[in-house]
Amino acid sequence: MQQNTGQHNEKPEMTRIVLDVMGGDNAPEEPVKAAVDAVNAREDIKVILVGQEDMVQNELSKHTYPAKRIEVVHAQEVIETAEPPVNAIRKKKQSSIVVGMNMVKQNEADAFVSAGSSGAILVGGQVIVGRIKGIERPPLAPLIPTEKGVALLIDCGANVDARASHLVQFAKMGSIYMRDVVGIKNPRVAIVNIGAEEDKGNALVKETYPLLKECADINFVGSIEAREIPRGEADVIVCEAFVGNVILKLYEGLSATLIDAIKKGMMSTLKSKIGAALALPALKSTLKTFDVSQYGGAPLLGLTGLVVKTHGSAKAGEITNSIFQCVTFKEKDINGKIRKNIAD
Amino acid sequence: MQQNTGQHNEKPEMTRIVLDVMGGDNAPEEPVKAAVDAVNAREDIKVILVGQEDMVQNELSKHTYPAKRIEVVHAQEVIETAEPPVNAIRKKKQSSIVVGMNMVKQNEADAFVSAGSSGAILVGGQVIVGRIKGIERPPLAPLIPTEKGVALLIDCGANVDARASHLVQFAKMGSIYMRDVVGIKNPRVAIVNIGAEEDKGNALVKETYPLLKECADINFVGSIEAREIPRGEADVIVCEAFVGNVILKLYEGLSATLIDAIKKGMMSTLKSKIGAALALPALKSTLKTFDVSQYGGAPLLGLTGLVVKTHGSAKAGEITNSIFQCVTFKEKDINGKIRKNIAD
Repeated sequence: MQQNTGQHNEKPEMTRIVLDVMGGDNAPEEPVKAAVDAVNAREDIKVILVGQEDMVQNELSKHTYPAKRIEVVHAQEVIETAEPPVNAIRKKKQSSIVVGMNMVKQNEADAFVSAGSSGAILVGGQVIVGRIKGIERPPLAPLIPTEKGVALLIDCGANVDARASHLVQFAKMGSIYMRDVVGIKNPRVAIVNIGAEEDKGNALVKETYPLLKECADINFVGSIEAREIPRGEADVIVCEAFVGNVILKLYEGLSATLIDAIKKGMMSTLKSKIGAALALPALKSTLKTFDVSQYGGAPLLGLTGLVVKTHGSAKAGEITNSIFQCVTFKEKDINGKIRKNIAD
Repeated sequence: MQQNTGQHNEKPEMTRIVLDVMGGDNAPEEPVKAAVDAVNAREDIKVILVGQEDMVQNELSKHTYPAKRIEVVHAQEVIETAEPPVNAIRKKKQSSIVVGMNMVKQNEADAFVSAGSSGAILVGGQVIVGRIKGIERPPLAPLIPTEKGVALLIDCGANVDARASHLVQFAKMGSIYMRDVVGIKNPRVAIVNIGAEEDKGNALVKETYPLLKECADINFVGSIEAREIPRGEADVIVCEAFVGNVILKLYEGLSATLIDAIKKGMMSTLKSKIGAALALPALKSTLKTFDVSQYGGAPLLGLTGLVVKTHGSAKAGEITNSIFQCVTFKEKDINGKIRKNIAD
């Protein structure tokens, strides 16, 4: 391990990403393919694949890639999705998640990407990688599709019942991320609420709203009702994790249900079947804009290194996008900005 | 007014519904049309139209209907959607909402239906009509469409930061409503959560979960993640009003955005346009199942009379359905059951 550190440090411009090869529904094929695609696409990326070595090497042997920029680190254990996260992180020291996160902690890598257990990734991020000093709580912040592009939904993590001061930090971190990683100028920050007026909301929102209004370093546009989220009325959507989780899951569930229903409906008569066949290519490209996977994974912000959670069902494309995200994250020194602007 | 009471009491089997003619985007045309349709469809309905009399009579004159079963009660004032609700209810004593709700309070009518200001209807329901003794908080409970039919989302009202005991009452009231008004046998009751396990959730859910498990009179099936709601995995979906509001609004917003995007996508090429034309009838009937308006309005439960809020954009069809809902509500003695099973 120490040798690796030496090697990595020779080329400081290289972004070193640890990729969990054991996590998600499509492991190890898709993560390995993603790593190969990433190093073939860009020369400034090194991927460290963490998982059961035999399996990983076997999968790697199917591909062509610059050998120097893919490394394999053995990790015998696997944390399953159903395992209680705190226990799993504590006991499975040889799991791909624990081994990979330890590399980030020890600065042997810049980022950790996994499609594995959300719970374990959230717990591991906090207890292994650790928070930036001054950051009270690390939010999980997925990008969700809107009519106009994407918005950052912050927080969707496992730590519910947040305080107002947490939400203010989420707003600031989210703003930096959308500006510097996603490239939105002066991102509009809104807080999820049940009405547009300042006096609306629950106790948490009422306490947070004036604090956000006072922040000089964000473009706070006020409350956003859930109805306006798909219309793209804000770029950074601030909420407590329980509410964020409900929004994220309903987004996924309702889109899937509606699209299924539409497909089924179009197959119901001969006439509509012919219509469907003609309209399908156009329809597919529309629906693709509502496919969350194309935007890469969700960063867990405010940690000393970057941790990215991709969908459990992630294919190579999403994982490769997540790897590129990590490069931008490092290049733009997001953590330096979080330290300077928020944590101090 | 006293004369009216006398008339109503002659036929106790008649359901007397006060309809706000001034509320909503389509007033007075659509409410008046709805009243006419309702009394023409069923002989056991009497509708009392509350609003500016000249305007209502003028609108009524366009229709044919049994004159004895539509009455007009004059109310000069109108509460606008943007008005602060508490003030509006207090000051506009001659508004259609206040006049109409007072008729329910004084048992001159069984139910009040309005497409007007949600806030004013929620406030008026509590301060004018009043809660059933023992009911801690009256929830607003819209029906939302799912793959398998509809589910009752309880609570989506204006009173946020609920307590566990409120949620238990919501579960019981929702269960009675779905069984006796909507006709679902042994309705499955679930609590909105961020995971399926019993130990997941925020403080409120963790406190409420074991209380719901103990309820012998409901079919509690545990937690529901927001992703499963559109799949129809529960019939009564219990949550605190802030979360319920987010679910309801996102449901409306995301469906509308997706359907718009699909329509636009299908108009993008000549080929897809032809396809769209062929597939459109089938598509429309599919999308109709996801149109909330066909199921009528949202009842505000736990009041001494029934108050129903329809969508602001409600057309006659939705309002007529809401009127029929009120008849079933009375016939099945929902309030008697709420008193007996919950409030005692």
